[in-house]
Amino acid sequence: MQTKKIPLDITKATTSRLAEVDFDNLVFGKYYTDHMMVCDYENGKWNTPKIMPYGPLSVEPSCKAFHYGQAIFEGMKAFKDENGKVWLFRPEENFNRANISCKRMAMPEFPKEYFFEALETLLKLDEAWIKAGDGNSLYIRPFVIATENGVSASPSSAYKFMIICCPAKAYYSSPVKVTIAQKYSRSADGGVGYAKAAGNYGASFYPTNLAKEKGYQQVIWTDASTHQYLEEAGTMNVFFRINNTLITAPTSDRILDGITRKSLIKLAQDQGLQVEIRRITVSELVDAAKNGSLKEMFGAGTAATIAPIEGFEYNGDYYELPEVKDAYSQYLKKSLQDIQYNRAEDKFGWRYEIQLDK
Amino acid sequence: MQTKKIPLDITKATTSRLAEVDFDNLVFGKYYTDHMMVCDYENGKWNTPKIMPYGPLSVEPSCKAFHYGQAIFEGMKAFKDENGKVWLFRPEENFNRANISCKRMAMPEFPKEYFFEALETLLKLDEAWIKAGDGNSLYIRPFVIATENGVSASPSSAYKFMIICCPAKAYYSSPVKVTIAQKYSRSADGGVGYAKAAGNYGASFYPTNLAKEKGYQQVIWTDASTHQYLEEAGTMNVFFRINNTLITAPTSDRILDGITRKSLIKLAQDQGLQVEIRRITVSELVDAAKNGSLKEMFGAGTAATIAPIEGFEYNGDYYELPEVKDAYSQYLKKSLQDIQYNRAEDKFGWRYEIQLDK
Ligand SMILES: Cc1ncc(COP(=O)(O)O)c(C=O)c1O
Ligand SMILES: Cc1ncc(COP(=O)(O)O)c(C=O)c1O
Repeated sequence: MQTKKIPLDITKATTSRLAEVDFDNLVFGKYYTDHMMVCDYENGKWNTPKIMPYGPLSVEPSCKAFHYGQAIFEGMKAFKDENGKVWLFRPEENFNRANISCKRMAMPEFPKEYFFEALETLLKLDEAWIKAGDGNSLYIRPFVIATENGVSASPSSAYKFMIICCPAKAYYSSPVKVTIAQKYSRSADGGVGYAKAAGNYGASFYPTNLAKEKGYQQVIWTDASTHQYLEEAGTMNVFFRINNTLITAPTSDRILDGITRKSLIKLAQDQGLQVEIRRITVSELVDAAKNGSLKEMFGAGTAATIAPIEGFEYNGDYYELPEVKDAYSQYLKKSLQDIQYNRAEDKFGWRYEIQLDK
Repeated sequence: MQTKKIPLDITKATTSRLAEVDFDNLVFGKYYTDHMMVCDYENGKWNTPKIMPYGPLSVEPSCKAFHYGQAIFEGMKAFKDENGKVWLFRPEENFNRANISCKRMAMPEFPKEYFFEALETLLKLDEAWIKAGDGNSLYIRPFVIATENGVSASPSSAYKFMIICCPAKAYYSSPVKVTIAQKYSRSADGGVGYAKAAGNYGASFYPTNLAKEKGYQQVIWTDASTHQYLEEAGTMNVFFRINNTLITAPTSDRILDGITRKSLIKLAQDQGLQVEIRRITVSELVDAAKNGSLKEMFGAGTAATIAPIEGFEYNGDYYELPEVKDAYSQYLKKSLQDIQYNRAEDKFGWRYEIQLDK
């Protein structure tokens, strides 16, 4: 994928913090690997990417990321197979989406060679943090923040592109109950819902807290104008299985173009499952739940891979989904993870090996 | 306004940077006063507010403000009158709005006594930075950021409420050309447009850049669903004068409840002007521009006070506003500033004096 070697500025950590980590009782996001990547944008260009020991940043209180939310992120994972090889899953998609997010937030795009060279170098250095075994992975968080100091509402002239990593296990253990948004919204036409802009997430916390107070772990987001179209599940894309058809909303400027979503669509189609990418309304869902044709609902995203939904609330009524044998969610999750962990043929060229030069 | 004395933790700057500031060629947001306020929230409560020398913060790369945009701000001004007295303008409104913003972003509300005690102490210490004279002021930026470290999308358990200040002159010098949003949107029903959430501003930069490329300095935001209702002008509320009636949109969850807006409404009504707070459509505006009944348009906000608009673009057509004698914008701006600078009677109790104990 790479075309030329990019010079990096590398400072290695003198000691490793790896021994401090209790991998049996892993708290996600508590431990970061020994190194991080930092690349500064100033005077209209990206400087040499730096790999350095993970540690705090010194930022001015007037840093524009704090005041104007010029901040975007990505979420990806590295997997280790039984032979100790390390794999990324469709990293180019994350790279491209980061730049799509940057563009929408008036932030400069990042060069592809920098991204891959820095990411690979980082993963090689911190390879010991990646554990083999189903569900284990290294969560990789590329992000970009505005770093110019100023209190006038205009785009920053300085940015930091960074990558930090932390060990992860599978996210959700049991199926979740969800509630369908009837008042709050996550994004709108002409807005930034399709970008992984930091502010989208903060904006969703309050409605999600309200849902939790009522016993629902996640919100199914609907369109802001009518609340009739089903769009996403929390911070995941969402799939519905009605009879034997798998349905998911088309992406738009309101919906994040999820890599898990598009991979599941491909896998399902490849297996001969019926997939419809079309708008789906709340009333269709309620009708399907009532007449028993709604078999499954699940969220899809890098963190959880697939998060099965056991029931949903709408207008005060709770609809419980049936227990299904041979759930598509289980089957698709396994197919996807088999590719991610290098246990199955990589038909679509989704795996990307990190050369560990051992 | 205060009820009890709040203990503060005060560390004074050993030297002042005031002499470095060129007040004749003031670059807004370049210089911050000698002190800042920092108050930390942890373990479910706000600690003692600290007043300390202005300076950088040390934050982890995984600070939630960067990743999830849990960040809000306020903008207010202190004015110095001819006798050296220092005045705030309706500071309780800013305080209340900060808490409204916090609530929507799932952030803890800040205690009122802390806010006023800290703000007054800060302004007393940095009083010399406030210059008398029309247009001069001290811009005050209270803000709150999530400070917990973590890469899972959930509300932070730690926050910083801070106040930083910088000297300011009047913002816009000449009337601006604007374009009416037909594709992009600033906020939606059920969203966070009524909050001063950081992400709202970053999200507006790209559409604003596109407008600038076409020669328009600001965007008039319309509702996200139909783009038919006129809502705000850039980061200001917006007023339209049709014949002798002043019209502004009602606030909603899409529109920031601006303090300048509500003060201008009061002042205009008090002077016997006809004011209508109602939805106004793009077609009404275009018709009024065509038949000559559209006399004025202006933005209203703390930074610019009133920013006159000289014309607007819609559907590729540019509508230039007439030159009017006795513009409401000029008259209202003067009325408001006369109150702010203690040159006129404070009929509504809007001024708030900072006791300088000299
Ligand atoms: C809002 C939202 N939707 C969907 C997804 C799923 O995207 P992906 O499968 O690329 O992780 C994410 C990110 O994880 C997200 O933040
Ligand atoms: C989006 C937006 N609208 C309107 C305003 C005007 O509000 P105020 O008059 O309180 O400054 C502001 C802030 O200045 C704003 O950010």
